Amino acid sequence: MTADELPSWRETTAKQSVLEFVAAVTDRDSPDFVPERDRVAVFDNDGTLWTERPVYAQLLFALDRAAELGHPTSLEELHAGGMAALMKLLALTHAGITTDEFDAACRSWLASARHPRFGRSYPATVYQPMLELLGMLDRRGFSCWIFSGGGTDFMRTWAGDVYGLPPHRVIGSVGATEFQLGPDGPELVKTATIQVINDGPQKPASIHAHVGQRPILAAGNTDGDLAMLQWTAASPFRTLQLVVQHTDGEREYAYDRDPILGSGTQRIQAAATENGWTLIDMAADWSAVYPPYP
Amino acid sequence: MTADELPSWRETTAKQSVLEFVAAVTDRDSPDFVPERDRVAVFDNDGTLWTERPVYAQLLFALDRAAELGHPTSLEELHAGGMAALMKLLALTHAGITTDEFDAACRSWLASARHPRFGRSYPATVYQPMLELLGMLDRRGFSCWIFSGGGTDFMRTWAGDVYGLPPHRVIGSVGATEFQLGPDGPELVKTATIQVINDGPQKPASIHAHVGQRPILAAGNTDGDLAMLQWTAASPFRTLQLVVQHTDGEREYAYDRDPILGSGTQRIQAAATENGWTLIDMAADWSAVYPPYP
Repeated sequence: MTADELPSWRETTAKQSVLEFVAAVTDRDSPDFVPERDRVAVFDNDGTLWTERPVYAQLLFALDRAAELGHPTSLEELHAGGMAALMKLLALTHAGITTDEFDAACRSWLASARHPRFGRSYPATVYQPMLELLGMLDRRGFSCWIFSGGGTDFMRTWAGDVYGLPPHRVIGSVGATEFQLGPDGPELVKTATIQVINDGPQKPASIHAHVGQRPILAAGNTDGDLAMLQWTAASPFRTLQLVVQHTDGEREYAYDRDPILGSGTQRIQAAATENGWTLIDMAADWSAVYPPYP
Repeated sequence: MTADELPSWRETTAKQSVLEFVAAVTDRDSPDFVPERDRVAVFDNDGTLWTERPVYAQLLFALDRAAELGHPTSLEELHAGGMAALMKLLALTHAGITTDEFDAACRSWLASARHPRFGRSYPATVYQPMLELLGMLDRRGFSCWIFSGGGTDFMRTWAGDVYGLPPHRVIGSVGATEFQLGPDGPELVKTATIQVINDGPQKPASIHAHVGQRPILAAGNTDGDLAMLQWTAASPFRTLQLVVQHTDGEREYAYDRDPILGSGTQRIQAAATENGWTLIDMAADWSAVYPPYP
């Protein structure tokens, strides 16, 4: 008997399918053995590794920053204004600032912001069972990467500490940056030009650009993750697909639709059923949702 | 005495500056000590790690592929047609093909193509002293990355074997890819839309996107590498900048201008002089240029 590496997972089929897959691909004597260099695992972030309800943390950061900059707006105005209002907010709060200044602004906001329902800092709204999974995969020679719709620069300010991942393995949507020789030396200035919206079919394209290998494990929760899971499933190696279902209105939230972009979950759940992917029912499969706090 | 890790470097100031820098940043008792996670080193490829004369290997690949596809063209026609002709050639030879098919086409070409002057395969026109440097840095806890103007997909087909780098650390210019469900399953199709031309001020921007950390060592050979070296020099850690000079008409080539894009070397050489960067004079500083062949 070895120690339970997934103590916050109940003894259900979800846990068994994860353990069985990891054992098979890491066992040299198994027909499913995968060399370490090919053990690439990719994870969506919002709703897969951390809480995205009631509103994305990054959006709240943008609203707070807009107010600080003297241009307050509200979630209601954003909803009414649609994509144009969102782009305007992002241009105001995420552009015209050097990458170093943006990094400092994010860290400062994260240090004081608290989740409205749970009273936790946002980085403490990560899912404890997924932290355990990331840790186990790392110990078994996997390289874990995040491919999220969130902003790369925002995520990198906290994901390293929380998930134990180096910055190059945290990839999201990106705006163009411009190199300039500023008064304090060379700097990169964030611009309002969006280069990549890292969702849907863009996720496999980003994986190709940033990893250059097909993953053998992929985890997501909405239809925006479907292409990433399909791409992974087509690897010549044995693969595992995980679909997180938000079924726990008591400990987290119960919903089946992305809170802002509106991606549903119907297509990814149908694909899971059709292809025998692993569904994770938060209420049933996890004995704890969040890590201890504070 | 430890074994000489740079046997193809003559005992000149270039070698001494490399050895002294590496010793200082890896010695825990040195004021210049840099933790392993911050030991990021970035290298240009063409003309810095391998031979770019008389013509980029990737361009010869494109010309051979165009002929195979029934649209032969010549270097002379390309020169006469300028950037428009080059884009047309790239669209013909690098687009409308899946990433897997492109990978196979590159490998097949590389297996038979030979350098017109040296009779070597192109991957054997890498610089032996730079291979030794990459190896030494790897053993000292550095992560080495390539940021080249060449195409990412082309480079990744051979750079892993030759330089010992995983694909995610080989970054160049990139065209957009499109995800589709093809007859054999999910695939990424390369398109003619160029997303990133990885030269000049784009190099620091790409380093930010792909690494997310400032390097402490950078090596290049033309003005297209200047911004990358400036960005590195502004790190809060001690840094090293290397500028390769093509001074060896006998064993390699003697030139001071990029063979196709026409980038000069005047600005980077002036910056090297002004800032005390390390100039590498191939004729004087290297006792061997190429690895043994075959």
